[in-house]
Amino acid sequence: MRMAELSAESGVPVATVKYYLREGLLPPGERTSPNQARYSAAHVQRLRLIKALAEVGGLSLASIGVVLSAIDGDETPHRTMGVVQQELAGPAPKVSEEAAEWASGRLEDLVRRTGWKWHAPENRAVANLIAALATAKELGHEKLVERLDEQADLAMRVAAIDVEVLAGWESVDKIIEAGLVTTVLGDRIFAGLRHLAQEQVSREVLGGLPRD
Amino acid sequence: MRMAELSAESGVPVATVKYYLREGLLPPGERTSPNQARYSAAHVQRLRLIKALAEVGGLSLASIGVVLSAIDGDETPHRTMGVVQQELAGPAPKVSEEAAEWASGRLEDLVRRTGWKWHAPENRAVANLIAALATAKELGHEKLVERLDEQADLAMRVAAIDVEVLAGWESVDKIIEAGLVTTVLGDRIFAGLRHLAQEQVSREVLGGLPRD
Repeated sequence: MRMAELSAESGVPVATVKYYLREGLLPPGERTSPNQARYSAAHVQRLRLIKALAEVGGLSLASIGVVLSAIDGDETPHRTMGVVQQELAGPAPKVSEEAAEWASGRLEDLVRRTGWKWHAPENRAVANLIAALATAKELGHEKLVERLDEQADLAMRVAAIDVEVLAGWESVDKIIEAGLVTTVLGDRIFAGLRHLAQEQVSREVLGGLPRD
Repeated sequence: MRMAELSAESGVPVATVKYYLREGLLPPGERTSPNQARYSAAHVQRLRLIKALAEVGGLSLASIGVVLSAIDGDETPHRTMGVVQQELAGPAPKVSEEAAEWASGRLEDLVRRTGWKWHAPENRAVANLIAALATAKELGHEKLVERLDEQADLAMRVAAIDVEVLAGWESVDKIIEAGLVTTVLGDRIFAGLRHLAQEQVSREVLGGLPRD
């Protein structure tokens, strides 16, 4: 297909498609004349992925570049998912040393009890988790994480569904693409379900509660 | 306490504290002389909340203003949590009409089966959920949401923990503050746990899988 059709199919404006080509996020089409090229269904899919990473995942173009290089590389599916998680996590917010120490302790206890493999705090997903736990502590709301073990157990069940669905794809390339999509969309979908569910439970439990 | 101490206690720079005072996000201190004021522990807590909303929640100052007005207002805890969820959700990314219709259908099925009260798509949390489901569809990854019912069941259990912990606070003001904190931090904490859990499961299930 030509550029105009590629743009229409993917929902990405022509100027933006050209920008992605210049930046190397989108591989060049097959040249058919000095100023025309032909694009394939793979180009449409790549543009949709970039759009999802930017608009739903909130990733910068630099991060999108890192993620796409990872899925185009020759790393195993397991390692590729690790790279995707790192980029999606982004840098962790700053917290006080005292609160960070408390949070790391809570997480170490959890990891010991669950038998999970421990991750170095250099891992951004872990650094963000520690920062969120530490922020609860700084706000005097440690109470909110006193049932962390139960939450971790539920997170494990969600993750098991995630990976089972991935493993159902027929090719490794599809598994890797699905891993990317589930990492980008999965947290949003679960957060949306949780908010809907909170609304139900809060209506029952807190619904009748007036203001002081 | 004086301004310098307020800044040190909260970890917010003096210039930023002054800016929040001018913007009305932080109530004025008790004036002790024409150019000095005294601040209380409530000011420290408010500054920590603003910091968490901005740095962990990623909220704009305008959204933080809306959220703080809600918790300072006289709405019930249940309604206040609704306002907080709306602001935290932010505007939903754009998706095609066809995909949005498919996603709404999936969500309606889910709501019918679970007996949840249905929310209008004007609700931003719902709009974001629909956009995320629709993006999966656009990417040809409907498979990722084929186990949505199980995920919703797990989300319900997480939400039950959330609300039980809230209901354990002794005053309505504390319940409301805790509702805000759990909405801002809760999704981050669960996402962190899920990523750690995905790493465990992916190692087991996909760990041995090579690249094609």
